[in-house]
This record gives sequence, C-alpha cells and structure tokens, in this order.
Amino acid sequence: MKSYAIGIDIGTTSTKVVLFDEKGAAVAHHAKSYPLLAEEPGAAEQNPDEIFEAVVYSLRETVRKSGDLAGKVGFISFSTAMHSLIAVDADGKPLTNSITWADTRSESYAFAVKSSPEAIDLYKRTGVPLHPMTPLFKLQWLKNEYPEIFQKADKFVGIKDYILYRWFGEWATDYASAAAMGLWNMKTLTWDEEALQMAEVTAARLPSIQPTTFYWNGLSETLAKESGLDPSVKVVIGATDGPLSNLGVGAISPGDVAVTIGTSGAIRTTSTTPVLDIEGRTFCYPLTENHWVSGGPVNNGGIAFQWVHDLFHEKEIEGSYEELSRRAEAALPGSDGLVFLPHLTGERAPLWDAQAKGSFIGLTLRHKKDQMVRAVLEGTIFNLYQVYSLVKTQAQEQAEVKILATGGFTNSRVWKQILADVFQKEVSIPEHTESSCLGAVQLGRFAIGESEVLQEVAEETKQYGKVLPNPEYKETYEELFEIYQSLSKTMESQYKAIHEFQNRVSK
Amino acid sequence: MKSYAIGIDIGTTSTKVVLFDEKGAAVAHHAKSYPLLAEEPGAAEQNPDEIFEAVVYSLRETVRKSGDLAGKVGFISFSTAMHSLIAVDADGKPLTNSITWADTRSESYAFAVKSSPEAIDLYKRTGVPLHPMTPLFKLQWLKNEYPEIFQKADKFVGIKDYILYRWFGEWATDYASAAAMGLWNMKTLTWDEEALQMAEVTAARLPSIQPTTFYWNGLSETLAKESGLDPSVKVVIGATDGPLSNLGVGAISPGDVAVTIGTSGAIRTTSTTPVLDIEGRTFCYPLTENHWVSGGPVNNGGIAFQWVHDLFHEKEIEGSYEELSRRAEAALPGSDGLVFLPHLTGERAPLWDAQAKGSFIGLTLRHKKDQMVRAVLEGTIFNLYQVYSLVKTQAQEQAEVKILATGGFTNSRVWKQILADVFQKEVSIPEHTESSCLGAVQLGRFAIGESEVLQEVAEETKQYGKVLPNPEYKETYEELFEIYQSLSKTMESQYKAIHEFQNRVSK
Repeated sequence: MKSYAIGIDIGTTSTKVVLFDEKGAAVAHHAKSYPLLAEEPGAAEQNPDEIFEAVVYSLRETVRKSGDLAGKVGFISFSTAMHSLIAVDADGKPLTNSITWADTRSESYAFAVKSSPEAIDLYKRTGVPLHPMTPLFKLQWLKNEYPEIFQKADKFVGIKDYILYRWFGEWATDYASAAAMGLWNMKTLTWDEEALQMAEVTAARLPSIQPTTFYWNGLSETLAKESGLDPSVKVVIGATDGPLSNLGVGAISPGDVAVTIGTSGAIRTTSTTPVLDIEGRTFCYPLTENHWVSGGPVNNGGIAFQWVHDLFHEKEIEGSYEELSRRAEAALPGSDGLVFLPHLTGERAPLWDAQAKGSFIGLTLRHKKDQMVRAVLEGTIFNLYQVYSLVKTQAQEQAEVKILATGGFTNSRVWKQILADVFQKEVSIPEHTESSCLGAVQLGRFAIGESEVLQEVAEETKQYGKVLPNPEYKETYEELFEIYQSLSKTMESQYKAIHEFQNRVSK
Repeated sequence: MKSYAIGIDIGTTSTKVVLFDEKGAAVAHHAKSYPLLAEEPGAAEQNPDEIFEAVVYSLRETVRKSGDLAGKVGFISFSTAMHSLIAVDADGKPLTNSITWADTRSESYAFAVKSSPEAIDLYKRTGVPLHPMTPLFKLQWLKNEYPEIFQKADKFVGIKDYILYRWFGEWATDYASAAAMGLWNMKTLTWDEEALQMAEVTAARLPSIQPTTFYWNGLSETLAKESGLDPSVKVVIGATDGPLSNLGVGAISPGDVAVTIGTSGAIRTTSTTPVLDIEGRTFCYPLTENHWVSGGPVNNGGIAFQWVHDLFHEKEIEGSYEELSRRAEAALPGSDGLVFLPHLTGERAPLWDAQAKGSFIGLTLRHKKDQMVRAVLEGTIFNLYQVYSLVKTQAQEQAEVKILATGGFTNSRVWKQILADVFQKEVSIPEHTESSCLGAVQLGRFAIGESEVLQEVAEETKQYGKVLPNPEYKETYEELFEIYQSLSKTMESQYKAIHEFQNRVSK
C-alpha cells in the first residue's frame, strides 16, 4: 500500500515543495524564491541559511495547505540543483555562501585542467565535462584566492548536504550530488582519489557518500513540529534535479530521451551503465547505481526564438509569437537549405565554448522571414540532436524508445513537430510540470520499498500529449543535420577571433 | 582644337549613344534596348542584327536630337560588353546569335580546363579568369554540341566586330575585345597560340587585331546618310566597357580605383603593366598597351541591400530604403562584430563559385536590425575590398590614389561612407552616368591626336562629389576584414554540400 509523499526540489531560483497522492497527483505545493548574489564579476552565490529557511517554510506551507491529507504522508524525498559548494567550519557554520553552478570565477582553473593531459581521464572517471561550474575547480579557486577560508574549512559540502546536516546533524551526500562535485568515481561509487588530489582535499573534508535511496527513518521533534508532519515520516536523501527530472517525466527506460527547452535547454538519455563521449562533451550522472543519465545542457533554446521574434517584431504584441510559429510552419522542412547555428549566447554542450556565436548560413534570394524563423527552430533542435548523437548507443538508436518533452517550447506546435521529425521518434509531453519533485518522490517510493522497480513507478502516473514523426522528412533532416555538423565543426576555429573583436568594439 | 564626339556603348540590355561637346558634357543621347534570349537552360543570347539596328537607330536619333551641333562631330568611338561570340559564314552572315557573357552552357568545358594543369599558365598569358563567360570555352562547347555550325563558320567574332564589319566590310577587333575572348596574349598583343589550340581555331578564323586607338578615316556614303553625320567623321574601334568606364570616371592614373555597385558590382584598378593574381581570381584587360585595368566583377551589390530590405519590410513603401540606410547609420562601424558574406546569388570574384551562399556570422543577442542591415552593406564592400587586395600593388597601397564610385549605391550616404572607411581612401562620385560612352570618346580623342596623354583628357572633364574616410575606423575595419577573409576562406569548402541540398529540396 502506497503513501502520500512530499518532494522537495532545491532549485537555483527557488525551492519547490509538492505533496503528491499515492498515484502521483499533486495535492498541495508551495515555492519560495531567493536571490543570486554577485558581489564580484563572475560570482553567483546564494545564502545557505536563506535557502534553509525557504525549504522549511515551503514545507510547512505545503503541509498547511494540504490540511488533513498531511497525515497520509509517508516520506519526504529530495531533489537539488547540481554543483553547489559551501565551506563549513567544525561547528557546521558556513564560511562561504553557497557557490552555485552559475559562478564562473574558477574559469582559469577549469581551463588549465581541461588543457592538461589528465583531462580526458578525469572526465572518464567522473563523468563531468570540465567546466567552471564544477566544485573540483571551485576548490582550486578557493584555495588560491581565499587560502584562509580553505584552511579553516572543516568540510566542503553542497546545498542539500547543508540542509540535511541541519536536520540530522550528520554530513551526508548522495551519489548524484557527489558526482556533480566532479570528485566522484563512477566505477568505485566513492570519492576519486586523483580528483581529490587535484582539489587538494581529503575524503575526511567531504560528506559521507550514500546511495540515492538512503533514508532517515523519522524526523526530529523540532522538525516534526516546524513542518507539521508526523515524526514517523521518513526522509530520503534523493538525487540531483537532472536525473530526477528524467524519472519524473517517465524517461527512465533504457534509451528514453528527456528534452527540455525553456530559455536554455537540455537533453538527457537513460542507460543501465555509464555512457561517455570520447571527447568529454557530455555528462553522465547516476540516478541509482543501475540508472545513469547522460546528455548535456545547451544555452540556446527559447532565447533564440525570442531573439528572432524581437528581430522581426521589435516588441511583443498579442499573437506575435503565434504569427512567427505560423511562418515557421509555412516554410518547408529544411528551411530551403538555410542553416542556423544557435549559439547566440555562447554554448555549453556540445561545444563547451563560451565564445561561440550564432550564424545563418546558406542564404539565397529565396530565404525570407519564414525560412529564417524555421531555421532558428531547426537549429536549436539540431544542437540538441548533436548532443544526443554523442550519447546514443547503437542499441538505443534502433530501439522503440520515446522522447519526453517539457518546457515552454511545447506550446509551439511546429517546434514540437521539428523535434519529432529530426529525431524521427514519437514525442510525448507530460501534463504536469514539477518533474524533479515528482521524480524525487518516485525515487523515494523505490527507496523505502513501496515499489520494487523504478520504471513501473514512473509509468503509472502520467498522461501525455503525443506528436508523431513524419517519416517523409527523415531524409531531409538527416542530410541537413550532416551539413549542420560540418558547419558546426568548421566554425569552431573562428569564434575566438570574432569574440575578441566583439569585446573590443563593444566595450 | 577639340571636336564634338559620339560615344556608342553596346551593352547587354541596350545600346547607348551619347554626343559630347569638346569638354565632355553630354549634348544629346539615345538608347535602345533588346531582349536576352534563352531558348534552352543556360542560354543567354541576343540577335546580332537587332543590335545592329539598335546601334544605327540610336545613332540617328542622337544626331537628330542634337540638331545643328551634329555638324561639329569629329569622330565616333566604341565601347562594348565583353565576351560575346558570333559564328559567321564566308558572306558575313551570322550562323548563331550573339552568345553573351551571361550564357553558362560552356560550364563543363570551363571547369575541365580550370581543373587541368594548364589552367594557371593560360590565365597568366591571357589575364582572363577561367569561366564559362569566355569565348574560348564557348568555342569548345560549340564544336562539341553544334559541330556543323562550328565547321561551317568562316569566322568567330564579337558583337562590336560584327557591327563594324557591317559598316566597313572588314573583320577587325581591338586588343580589349580580343583579350575578352580568352584567346589573346598580353605579352605579344596577338592571338595566343596555345589558347587557339585549346579552342581548336586558327587565327585566320578570327578578326584581325588592332590597337584600341585604331580608326577608320571616314564613313561610307550609306552610313553617313543613315546616321545624318558628315562622311568625314572618323570611327575609332575603341575598347570594352570595363576599362573604358575606368577612363570615363577618371580612374586612369596608376593606382586609381573604380568601384561600381548597381544590382551587382565591380572593382577595377589601373596600372601601366599587367597585374595578375597568383590564383587567377582577377582579370587584367588592356585599355591601351600602356594602360591595364585589373579587378573583378562581383554578383552581390544592390541585390543584397534589396534582399535585406524585403526581409524586413516585405514590400517597398515610401522611404523604406532610406529608413534602412538610417538603421545602418545607427549601428557602429563593424556592426558589433557581425559579418555578412554577401554571396546570395553565388559569386564571381573573388570566389568564382556559383554555389557560394550568403551568411550572417557572429550573431549574439546584441544584434538587431540595425547591425544586420549595416553588416549587409559592409559585407558587399568587404567582398570588393577582397578583390582589390588581390590586385593592389604595394606601391598602390601607399600612394595618394583615389576611388571613383558609380552606380545606385552612391545614393546611400552610409554605403559610400563604408566604402571610404574600409578602403581608407577618398571616394569621388562623378556627376555623369554614361562613363563607358565618355571613356570611349576620351580614348577616341587620344586616338585621333586631339590629346597626347590619356590621363589629361580624363581629368579636365569631371565634377565630383567627395567622401572622406574616417581615420578612427581604420583599425576596426582592418581587424574585421581579417575576420571576414578568414570566414570567407573557411566557408569555401562548405558551399557545395549546401548548394546540392538546396537543389534537392527546392525542386
């Protein structure tokens, strides 16, 4: 018999708490936001105590809103944003803010390691693309820039670790959060000795590592009182938001693909063992030791559509986005051979080049607004498809797998259709939105033994909208994607000079 | 004492006749157009007798309009479009239409020679880029595709040769027209033996070659009667429209540059000896044996501005082009680092690649309409500057030379300014427009001994508008041009695949 459960997702802009019934329907929820702090260039920090308060407050509000139903809650389970780092003293007091994934101050450290011969082996052991987001490089930065804090620190932990420490008085992290630090070995499921040496920390200065299914068997008196929950409620340590979102949308069978496009975007596919890219362009994070999620985040999703909207309309008027979608629909698949490289804001996966730029390539007199708008949408999908092509296995490509799509782009019929046509796979759109919270709860059910298999849990709870691929566009998109890849590769060597020129003239 | 004179320019769309006074001011003119005939794909022909009638009719009309002033006319001098070919029988009757420069049916023949080891030597001897426009390849095509006509032909001549044959009963051509056939040797000033062998014709089947200053010392009775001119009027054989246009605008001192941008465009600089590009990307044609004009034609001039206009405005409304020019002026020089490769309709110089495409490269969120419009204008100028950079000598670069600009683009203040700023030279805009006719007359004055030096003639006759370069943009444009060149080179290898894809999807 299944219980009600609460999912808590500690995000970068807010903490969301959702109470689900035994079938996965949301019963009550509350969210509280907090600011990003940037006291120097490149900084992107948050106050860990402010986040702690947001978690407790949102939990209490959710319980309050659910009334009597809160009595049915069997457990809480966690999701968290990746890559945060907090230095704490021996009393567990923060010596730094929570340094988020968006903080770029360790850029030179990441670059140095990325350029070193150890780079690819490090990636192969940890599954994390070498990037300033990663705590490994933040530790190097901290040691060099703030040596007193680095020395004084008793432990280096993530934001979820900090919340759970304040609840249970012990420093514990989960496989997925450990992996996100860039310090965790995918084979041994423990801290990676060489990575620790790079970061110049010992395992003793990090939390203990637990499976993502680890749980505490009840709440403290204080927490029970503060939250309004029964002291018997279990607390599952959970995992990170990316892999949990795959679970939450139902993209958990081997080969299933989760695509999300909001302002930026991401693509993640699931497998039973780690999948890595030979050039280190994709991540691979654990959901459990038998479920691995690989893929990549991309910078340019809805922001590219917004850019082309503003180019042609200059301001949003009622229906102007719909008009652009209609224009994209009016153009032929393949945009008459016009290719858009979507890197307007630089690019993470697959280029990992902050200096990358956008381009329209292949222009002729035929190309008008219709084709340009469609090319923008196709370009964002090609970029995701390129990331996918790095992590898909032969078996996955052949298999009857599905794409689960979330994010604002699912409001555009033509954009969804382009996704289905480029991938030549059925696209399903889940009806709910808080997929990381739902994923946390589904993982929790598996953790406490309410279900024996992770997939089953995922499948019983969703209703999807569906988009079928047009087989007649398969060849067109295959051919154009080949051209896209060639252009993408060709342009790589050009971005540095353009970027430096733009910096000079725009200063 | 100088006479009045008539310039006749046999163009591709019409023949223009202008009567100038002794100072170079136009007194009367008339033009008559004729169609291009395309009876099969790639064909671009004209009826030589229709052109003959247009010449005689326009001459008569000009004389008629000038009234008594026609009595002051001392000579007629010719300009002609380049690269035309007519097969004629032993009676001087045309066996073919005039096959114009725009006819592409000899493409495979040009390509075969261009890919052969002889290619660069052929170019170095003839000064003509290897391209289907050239009669050398048209002769190969004719021999293979229409062998009966090729065999039956007594002579192969150009359109001006045909007109002059009908007037004087002899087959004569000038250095410049001979050069345009791709069969003329720049060193020996005679037909090139190896080129003749390639074309499988003997010199006997071609007109006799005369200096561009050759003239007939009077008109036939018939012609005098038909035209209304005195029988004593001399007829100067003249040259081709490109070199004569340089003379007509006053770009005849060594290093002077003539830039013209209409729908397409061209850039030509003058030197006292031939100047060639090591890769054969520029032409070098004689004006006289001591005046050589080198440069290249480009496909994408005003047509690119029109394209971006139609992209943003969709239809022309009053002031919409002016609004775009104001937008280009509002953007910073360098368009915030956005580069436009202007090859919307493929490209002649410097790429000589009919499959080349247009591109916007370097897009970021900063880039809006203003920068895109400016980038289009800058891109067309960069393309011309790239051609110029192939033919400018070290000495020319340093010298106090000027740019003479003609064509519709001179109506756009910002476009002219970009020209001055990219080249970092003063730009002069002649007030008159029929520069080829005026050039023909100036050459004629030199030919019949009314002036001793060609330059002087050019300089006494013009009033110019002037645009001065902004020295503060020198560095910006130097840097951006380097990026433009790098992008241009990088993209070369990509056009074939894009072009073939576009052909497939747009059929």
